[in-house]
Amino acid sequence: MAIFFHAENWPVDIWLQALRKLSPGLDIRLWPDLAGRDDIEYALLWRPRREMLLNLPNLKVIFSLGAGVDHLLGLDTLPPHVPVARITEPDLTSRMSEYIVLHVLGHHRRLREYEALAARHEWRELGQPAAREVRVGILGLGVLGLDAAKKLKMMGFQVAGWSRRAKDVEGIESFAGMDNLDAFLARTDILVCLLPLTPETAGILDYDLFSRLARDGAGKGPVLINAGRGGCQVERDILRALEDETLFAATLDVFETEPLPQASPLWAHERVSITPHNAAPSAPEAICSRILEQIRRFEAGKALEDLVDIRQGY
Amino acid sequence: MAIFFHAENWPVDIWLQALRKLSPGLDIRLWPDLAGRDDIEYALLWRPRREMLLNLPNLKVIFSLGAGVDHLLGLDTLPPHVPVARITEPDLTSRMSEYIVLHVLGHHRRLREYEALAARHEWRELGQPAAREVRVGILGLGVLGLDAAKKLKMMGFQVAGWSRRAKDVEGIESFAGMDNLDAFLARTDILVCLLPLTPETAGILDYDLFSRLARDGAGKGPVLINAGRGGCQVERDILRALEDETLFAATLDVFETEPLPQASPLWAHERVSITPHNAAPSAPEAICSRILEQIRRFEAGKALEDLVDIRQGY
Repeated sequence: MAIFFHAENWPVDIWLQALRKLSPGLDIRLWPDLAGRDDIEYALLWRPRREMLLNLPNLKVIFSLGAGVDHLLGLDTLPPHVPVARITEPDLTSRMSEYIVLHVLGHHRRLREYEALAARHEWRELGQPAAREVRVGILGLGVLGLDAAKKLKMMGFQVAGWSRRAKDVEGIESFAGMDNLDAFLARTDILVCLLPLTPETAGILDYDLFSRLARDGAGKGPVLINAGRGGCQVERDILRALEDETLFAATLDVFETEPLPQASPLWAHERVSITPHNAAPSAPEAICSRILEQIRRFEAGKALEDLVDIRQGY
Repeated sequence: MAIFFHAENWPVDIWLQALRKLSPGLDIRLWPDLAGRDDIEYALLWRPRREMLLNLPNLKVIFSLGAGVDHLLGLDTLPPHVPVARITEPDLTSRMSEYIVLHVLGHHRRLREYEALAARHEWRELGQPAAREVRVGILGLGVLGLDAAKKLKMMGFQVAGWSRRAKDVEGIESFAGMDNLDAFLARTDILVCLLPLTPETAGILDYDLFSRLARDGAGKGPVLINAGRGGCQVERDILRALEDETLFAATLDVFETEPLPQASPLWAHERVSITPHNAAPSAPEAICSRILEQIRRFEAGKALEDLVDIRQGY
């Protein structure tokens, strides 16, 4: 049994070290030197190129090295009968919630404005509502969205989530499907996007959507936080919405093109916070441990967890 | 029955409006026109001047308009037999925890450094531990400290608290008394101070204390967050500790002199965040509602809550 490992543009050594530490005898194959392709039963992949998925006759499972699987599902060479599993594991979930809670609180507490005052040596109270007066809405109420929702709730915010199917979570208002998107947006002051990238969600964060957010909130105006996928957002619409105050501010961890091009006007916008797609950085040891556990389960005849529904796209 | 209200340097109108809304018939007296001083049974005070406490023969209770009471206990005119009550109420507690969680996460997630990268249009991952690898220590485990501790715990941090007497709280390591301060500091990466200002705590945040913080942490080095009282900190020691990296960074909401003087080098320090003593801004309606509830209880012969032990100083 061999494993094909490929993580495009990632520091591969750290990952191989993690795998070898967790499973010293593991036969790991790297592109392009896959040697006996018949041995390869599992593929651990991040942004593979299309040709990498060809000629693997005994491939049993493809594991995404991250929570998202849009990097796999877009490939026309994805073998249709091989199951695809995504990563959900506590380390990644916890890191994502750190990011979401930090940036929701940062906007809520007007951190940027206080930094600007401090830069001018200016001691001034700006005033702010309490968390209980502020409505956070989370687009995408999967494992990550739910964890963030619970933590924001515990910080005192009014929290709602929107997803394909309604979720029943105590204290979190649940909206489901396109029919209820308007109602969800109309009660949302701070919008957090954790949607997967699928044909339905591509470009969903556009000017029209921003214009449907609450405009009667206790804070300064609607805020967007996108820590899902850059393909969900229309960046020229974000800039337009900031310009005419349809959006008050934005925090973006993901972009239409990554790395964000030097020339993007988002970098220098005073009401935009940029992070380099690190909201929930994959911790190699935690991710590899989870995948090896899945392989052990599968080899023992048990069902895989976190399987992707390829038609739904997540 | 009349009430003496005084809040030095606060916008008094908002407070009077809140009191009148909550209790329309209330007889409120303002300095210096106290009229018939014999009528005054309750005093609601923030930083009163010493002469304000003289000649109030029928004063039954003094209420501090904030959580701290150092502004009262330092006055030599404080009538020794009149009980003093501080404010603890959920709005104030929740706002303080917003501030603490925001700034702990901000240091943990290296927000300042990412902002500096973004200002240079630089896309770079800095790396960071998970919250579970980071030890937060809270000096002062009263109502505010406990709430912050629980919320930080829920965000994944290892949390300990230090207080005069040991507290038994699930998941929070408790250290008590001066004998255990060293052990508490030695396991602390991010130090949060929520101590009251008393003769024992004045100047406690000094170079010697900073040098006893953990130096083997998973992050960049020890961090100080003071949202308690400025009198607990020695600002020249904070600057010295930042200079020689005994401290990596600091967030300060309170200062030896407030407003922080224009000339203070803290304003411009790149590893110091300054806020204008607004970690837990008093919301007039919530505070007044709590005090009027206390007065009703007291008039009905019930015990006052949140009484201050004047000898202990909090």
